Amino acid sequence: MHAYRTHTCGALTASDTGETVRLSGWIHRKRDHGGVLFVDLRDNYGITQIVADEDSPALTVLDRLRVESVVTIDGEVKARAASTVNASLPTGEIEVFARAITVQSRADELPMPVAGDADYPEEIRLRNRFLDLRREQVHANILLRSKVISSIRQRMVEQGFTEFQTPILTASSPEGARDFLVPSRLHAGKFYALPQAPQMFKQMLMVAGFDRYFQIAPCFRDEDLRADRSLEFYQLDFEMSFVTQEDVFQMLEPVLAGLFEEFAGGRSVTPAGAFARIPYAEAMLKYGSDKPDLRNPLIIRDVTRHFDGSGFGLFANIAGSGGVVRAIPAPQTAHRSRKFFDEMNEWARAEGFAGLGYVTRKDGVFGGPVAKNHGEEGMARLYDDLGLGKDDGLFFAAGKEKDATKLAGAARTRVAQELDLVEKDCFKFCWIVDFPMFEYDEERQRIDFSHNPFSMPQGEMEALESKEPLEVLAWQYDIVCNGYELSSGAIRNHRPDIMYKAFEIAGYSREEVDANFSGMINAFKYGAPPHGGSAPGIDRIVMLLADEPNIREVIAFPLNQRGEDLMMGAPSAVSPQQLKELHIKVAEPPKAAALQQVRTDIIGD
Amino acid sequence: MHAYRTHTCGALTASDTGETVRLSGWIHRKRDHGGVLFVDLRDNYGITQIVADEDSPALTVLDRLRVESVVTIDGEVKARAASTVNASLPTGEIEVFARAITVQSRADELPMPVAGDADYPEEIRLRNRFLDLRREQVHANILLRSKVISSIRQRMVEQGFTEFQTPILTASSPEGARDFLVPSRLHAGKFYALPQAPQMFKQMLMVAGFDRYFQIAPCFRDEDLRADRSLEFYQLDFEMSFVTQEDVFQMLEPVLAGLFEEFAGGRSVTPAGAFARIPYAEAMLKYGSDKPDLRNPLIIRDVTRHFDGSGFGLFANIAGSGGVVRAIPAPQTAHRSRKFFDEMNEWARAEGFAGLGYVTRKDGVFGGPVAKNHGEEGMARLYDDLGLGKDDGLFFAAGKEKDATKLAGAARTRVAQELDLVEKDCFKFCWIVDFPMFEYDEERQRIDFSHNPFSMPQGEMEALESKEPLEVLAWQYDIVCNGYELSSGAIRNHRPDIMYKAFEIAGYSREEVDANFSGMINAFKYGAPPHGGSAPGIDRIVMLLADEPNIREVIAFPLNQRGEDLMMGAPSAVSPQQLKELHIKVAEPPKAAALQQVRTDIIGD
Repeated sequence: MHAYRTHTCGALTASDTGETVRLSGWIHRKRDHGGVLFVDLRDNYGITQIVADEDSPALTVLDRLRVESVVTIDGEVKARAASTVNASLPTGEIEVFARAITVQSRADELPMPVAGDADYPEEIRLRNRFLDLRREQVHANILLRSKVISSIRQRMVEQGFTEFQTPILTASSPEGARDFLVPSRLHAGKFYALPQAPQMFKQMLMVAGFDRYFQIAPCFRDEDLRADRSLEFYQLDFEMSFVTQEDVFQMLEPVLAGLFEEFAGGRSVTPAGAFARIPYAEAMLKYGSDKPDLRNPLIIRDVTRHFDGSGFGLFANIAGSGGVVRAIPAPQTAHRSRKFFDEMNEWARAEGFAGLGYVTRKDGVFGGPVAKNHGEEGMARLYDDLGLGKDDGLFFAAGKEKDATKLAGAARTRVAQELDLVEKDCFKFCWIVDFPMFEYDEERQRIDFSHNPFSMPQGEMEALESKEPLEVLAWQYDIVCNGYELSSGAIRNHRPDIMYKAFEIAGYSREEVDANFSGMINAFKYGAPPHGGSAPGIDRIVMLLADEPNIREVIAFPLNQRGEDLMMGAPSAVSPQQLKELHIKVAEPPKAAALQQVRTDIIGD
Repeated sequence: MHAYRTHTCGALTASDTGETVRLSGWIHRKRDHGGVLFVDLRDNYGITQIVADEDSPALTVLDRLRVESVVTIDGEVKARAASTVNASLPTGEIEVFARAITVQSRADELPMPVAGDADYPEEIRLRNRFLDLRREQVHANILLRSKVISSIRQRMVEQGFTEFQTPILTASSPEGARDFLVPSRLHAGKFYALPQAPQMFKQMLMVAGFDRYFQIAPCFRDEDLRADRSLEFYQLDFEMSFVTQEDVFQMLEPVLAGLFEEFAGGRSVTPAGAFARIPYAEAMLKYGSDKPDLRNPLIIRDVTRHFDGSGFGLFANIAGSGGVVRAIPAPQTAHRSRKFFDEMNEWARAEGFAGLGYVTRKDGVFGGPVAKNHGEEGMARLYDDLGLGKDDGLFFAAGKEKDATKLAGAARTRVAQELDLVEKDCFKFCWIVDFPMFEYDEERQRIDFSHNPFSMPQGEMEALESKEPLEVLAWQYDIVCNGYELSSGAIRNHRPDIMYKAFEIAGYSREEVDANFSGMINAFKYGAPPHGGSAPGIDRIVMLLADEPNIREVIAFPLNQRGEDLMMGAPSAVSPQQLKELHIKVAEPPKAAALQQVRTDIIGD
């Protein structure tokens, strides 16, 4: 018989009745029924009920052990009485009568419980992550993460991709965030950087002719932490050669739709081939955002022209001076009190906007100051135009286009939440496309790149030479699910001549481009294929599937919100000798410098 | 028709004759046959021959383009004349007659060629890695690496393992090498460390109950570089709960044997279940190494007792004073000159040893000073004992056991190489087992751990309490292939009481253990399963399979031997602002401080 187990704790069923078995696991729960002890024995695979009575030498041992101790039980599988069958457990029809016990590891009193759903402060959970990870929900989340990543790998391989590893000790990358730096011992005063993304390397792999690259890539950004952000995170980084934007979409839609369907557990998923493609300008108008949540049925409309010369002076002035008025429907709100509408206005002001106008309507009768001033007839025309009904209210966001768009988007979200209009149990995907290549920087009074200078402009060189810069669109695209941007991506500009021209429009000389992007430009001078890609966030995908709002719930060993590993004690003070070898000094020593610890020379695997 | 290709450059065969196709790729070679141009068009998948004559508008364009330019060719598939069929290419029966061409990217004059096998200095290759990676051998190596890793993943999943990601920003780990440090911006004067291995985390995952963990884990050691070492490297890191050493072997042998068989290309592989298990003491005796190359048929023997009271005073003295004499056979060396034997002795002295004695034998007649002094009869007895024949020579390594063992091991390797005895085209695996738990530290005159203090001693607490420390063995094992250690591993000590005891024997107090290893000890106090694992080196496995002696040949973007990325320019100087944010100063500024570069704010994927 095996030293520790003949079966796992999730394996035994009624068909094993009568078998002599050995199980090992953690004591999950104990229930003492006066001389008979019931123990839930738990491992990675499940829970099996162990029984010990006064006939069993295991009774006194089990009686004295604390929960979470690890034991090996020798015993006999018995069918449970019909009345004690637990239908919710695969092992619920049997129990194991303990004949002998071996204690593998005694548990001290626990700093936090494992059984049960009680919520514990994150600090205690992360300090005792080895216990926290035993808890049902976190355990399931981490296993889900593994399965999701494994499924992604398989789907990418099926699409003809090959996985590569790109360097983690590398140079500062041309992303906008702050780099983590690693001092070099061999090169005094110089530093490696951890990759914010393997952007340069994946493009180099395309230039090297590898055709279809992917990586479940660790990325690092030294940015302030939020619930959905971690200092290190993973992305499905991919890049393809000889492709158009359409090819990228055709490849990625089945990967994402298939993945989400696999783990949706009954929630609906936009099928591959049916991902909406929304031009950036349309998204900003209809959803007030380039990350539209399509579960929200509300559509914003531009109603500026209705207020040109309106009796409602405020909107008339805005409409007459180049501003816009956007309308957000509030369907079936006839029964809502004035308070509902006023509170929306107060919310908008609290968020820093000028305010949110509104019209109420009950059985066809308009109410509120906008309607009063604008007039019954104009209001009816506007409602006809928008296709609204006799009991629908309407909110207005008015002002400069940028401000009104933002307010309309936020109001759309809030109205749908308040009215409980957001569709449940579904994952709605869309692409945002046709991003502008350039934008006007009001502050610096000049044209600059609006997103990524390395994307290929639609129309390539001809567009740059013949169009107004602000009218040039880029082959750039975001994938959005339920209002979350999973990633941006682009068909890259692989042509040095087009790159110099794009930078010239944004006010950069050829010399500046060569000085700052020599690696990329240089590589493109020796034969580069047209290529493009994207990099959906893995942590975000798992958060969506696990329905967890906090990224730390889907990472086995996350840093806390202050960037600390409370279990391992990172970051920590280091020895003067280590700093000397790295040719650096600490500018401000930590307040409580940890003593250097004497360590024996230990070799891991 | 697709914008870039209807087929890849490896797809077209005779059955496509007559088809109109579009191909994209790099101009690999051009051959001008007076008015007819033959172009080898290359992509990731293969090479297709393109033909353009004076009827084709592609002729003049192709004529002017340099090799490695990227083009799209529209054309017609034609069968080649029988005399021009290239049987070595899958596409060798056809060619594509070019009707039209689009230039995707013009190549400048190349800093190094892509076609051909010419050797180029590593500096030029790494600086232009995007070109170097297009070359046939490196391209194949990197694809092999991907396939090997993909196969490992699949095999581990088949064995019931789940892949996890462990943190890269973490604390100093209890391995013996030098850490890479990452200054913390949020915690002045404190540092993260990059993991030398995820040792602590994988054990924490076992304590958390995940049962079977693996990871293709990036590891980092700031050690001086060698041909087979890189600052960052990957290992197949794994750990299992509720297992004995035997279970680890039963799991890993099919994974490694299956993997090697898959990629051996006809080379033989030790089958799973047949990996030799060699106790450490036996390995040191028979092979003079704990990394024995079993392709070498020579076996070292201890012949000390033969020289006790021998006429050969040097060996007699060594034998009489606690030293040892080890014999390394040199079979079938009757025809070898005296020079062969003398040069072996000179080699041993050049390596810092006292010298290598020898006996020659030709048709039964012994020769050389050892034989002369030891005597014909004694020599014959020794040869009988070793089972040597009438034309076999013999080398002797004599001295203190440690020195003689080392010399014998080195001589065994050299003799086998000189005599061309090393078996070719095979992968021979073995386990080294039964490592001693403790050793006597001559310098500090005390008992210390010989390898890893966290391995479980064989016999557990009872052995520690009842045996002489130097006789206690550990559940520790190395996996060795062709003389290379792929990894060490162990059944871990999961019991705080046994750990305190082991450290006590090595002279450490309970307080010292608690102070230095609090994370591990603390976790083990709340229920830890028996567990063990190992971590075979991925780069080393790929090097063996690719038959490459240099690790940089199997890494897409390696650092050079001075730890520099010549293509990306890492490590590099950073801005004073970056250092200030990280609360550090450079102790010695680099000699040629790079100017801070002005960068536009760029967003990658």
